Amino acid sequence: MRAAIIDNRSLVIREAPDPVPGTGEILVRVKAAGLNNADRMQIMGSYPAPPGSPADIPGMELAGEVVGTGPGVFRFAPGDAVMGVVGGGALAELLVVNERTMMAMPPQLSWVEAGGFPEAFTTAHDALVTQCGLLSGERLCVHGAAGGVGIAAVQIGACMGADVIATVRSPELRVPVEGLGRGIIAVDPGEFTGHGPFDVIIELVGAANLGPNLAALRIGGRISVIGVSGTGGRAELDLLTLMTKRARIHGSTLRARPMEQKADAARRVEAQVIPHVAAGRITVPIVEVFPLERAVEAYARFAAGTKFGKIVISLDS
Amino acid sequence: MRAAIIDNRSLVIREAPDPVPGTGEILVRVKAAGLNNADRMQIMGSYPAPPGSPADIPGMELAGEVVGTGPGVFRFAPGDAVMGVVGGGALAELLVVNERTMMAMPPQLSWVEAGGFPEAFTTAHDALVTQCGLLSGERLCVHGAAGGVGIAAVQIGACMGADVIATVRSPELRVPVEGLGRGIIAVDPGEFTGHGPFDVIIELVGAANLGPNLAALRIGGRISVIGVSGTGGRAELDLLTLMTKRARIHGSTLRARPMEQKADAARRVEAQVIPHVAAGRITVPIVEVFPLERAVEAYARFAAGTKFGKIVISLDS
Repeated sequence: MRAAIIDNRSLVIREAPDPVPGTGEILVRVKAAGLNNADRMQIMGSYPAPPGSPADIPGMELAGEVVGTGPGVFRFAPGDAVMGVVGGGALAELLVVNERTMMAMPPQLSWVEAGGFPEAFTTAHDALVTQCGLLSGERLCVHGAAGGVGIAAVQIGACMGADVIATVRSPELRVPVEGLGRGIIAVDPGEFTGHGPFDVIIELVGAANLGPNLAALRIGGRISVIGVSGTGGRAELDLLTLMTKRARIHGSTLRARPMEQKADAARRVEAQVIPHVAAGRITVPIVEVFPLERAVEAYARFAAGTKFGKIVISLDS
Repeated sequence: MRAAIIDNRSLVIREAPDPVPGTGEILVRVKAAGLNNADRMQIMGSYPAPPGSPADIPGMELAGEVVGTGPGVFRFAPGDAVMGVVGGGALAELLVVNERTMMAMPPQLSWVEAGGFPEAFTTAHDALVTQCGLLSGERLCVHGAAGGVGIAAVQIGACMGADVIATVRSPELRVPVEGLGRGIIAVDPGEFTGHGPFDVIIELVGAANLGPNLAALRIGGRISVIGVSGTGGRAELDLLTLMTKRARIHGSTLRARPMEQKADAARRVEAQVIPHVAAGRITVPIVEVFPLERAVEAYARFAAGTKFGKIVISLDS
């Protein structure tokens, strides 16, 4: 198979051995794979692949067609269209993955959309629902709302019946963010506290927001920190405010979780997010699509920022 | 009635009007009331009473005898022995309280023990179980384990089947802390990280512990911050570690919660802690008992530190 192989902090496209599915595993012909910050860090050498994933092929989400099965597979069969999150290895023509971490691809999504769906929407749903317990009628703030996970969180929050305030640094991206659902309000990051108090805050930017987040939190509110790309990782936390707000702060990553937790997260997305995709209430904005051969260029576009939606590698040729 | 009235950052004992029970309320003749840091801060003017509580009579936990009932009372009747957490007003001969925030006093406790039980054990159970979801078999660290809430958390943790590591600053208090239950290990606060990783950490000391707490936390671990008396309230939080540990940090206080939440917490303590009291597995160590007339002296003893157990005001004369 052809694959994008990490080589000297960049990628080269070359032949690699075809993987063989073991017990409970399916062989997937990858049709599309979305890019994420974790891949980019892995390519640059600062975020090694988790155990059990290919060390030298990036790509943590994909959509594709089942072309083979190992023993003990009963959810999928050859010809099925699947999508899901993996620990790595998606930037290749073929991938072996435990079938329980994959979701059936809804027919409403194209290959490219489905390839850019799993990581962002699973991360966002996990943060909003599994961690923060967001409920209908609550007030939600999503920081970094124009990014992949932000776009997912804003849409899931709106579908759940939350009031959604989205902070977006680039003024030109506020209109598309507000177009993601009814009642979504996009504001400058410096202005979000005036729209509180919030029951749930999704933090995708970083440390500089922690103080204002806690100040703008309602009593009993929850903060989920799932990204620190913007302003670094060390923040001052006022424990007395944390106590008087009776607040909680979650931190989480998806990539490092064991298979059973990824499978559990996939079941929740199937049950609670896919119905909204099927009904057309959730969309997957795509910025640009690159063939595997131009993966280096795709990551450069990814790193350039100021985009609305996913950068996706297409292998559907 | 006689009551301890806040006057110029101290207390005077004088007559006050007898309170009258309204709908759902009981009139309690207070037999004993434990002292807590929140009262002490209230007396010093830095922690006003929550709405609905007497502004000038401290005391947030008590045991006593029901001597009157308002309309719509059905849980208790005159002659019943009750105990519970209140927003204030316990340092008086009489107190009116919503009956749903009170628990039936188990016969295994004396008045003095019951008067020192509710705040510490409700706070500890709420932090361990309701916030942190402690499970049997998990590893628990309790900081400040020789204090009132610490003693409660260590005992509840041991009863639940957790491995308990207790940090105790004063070497002479480590033996009594280890005597609180089977398998409890008491260590110097500087040495706790070597006993991890921990699933749950109860923080009663303050900001200086936050970094080591996060470092000593197991993946998926939970920290509950319910006291900052030792080292202040501002701590540096490493968000990347929070994310890679998939950790969560809770802050909480009991006193400011609305009646329905206090009632809910009391039901949980009745169901999950009182059975251990009844079986003799949980005890309430008492340091010293003072009559109401010596309340100022009692708070001075409370503030002096280095004690094992509760300071309680007795009105059982």
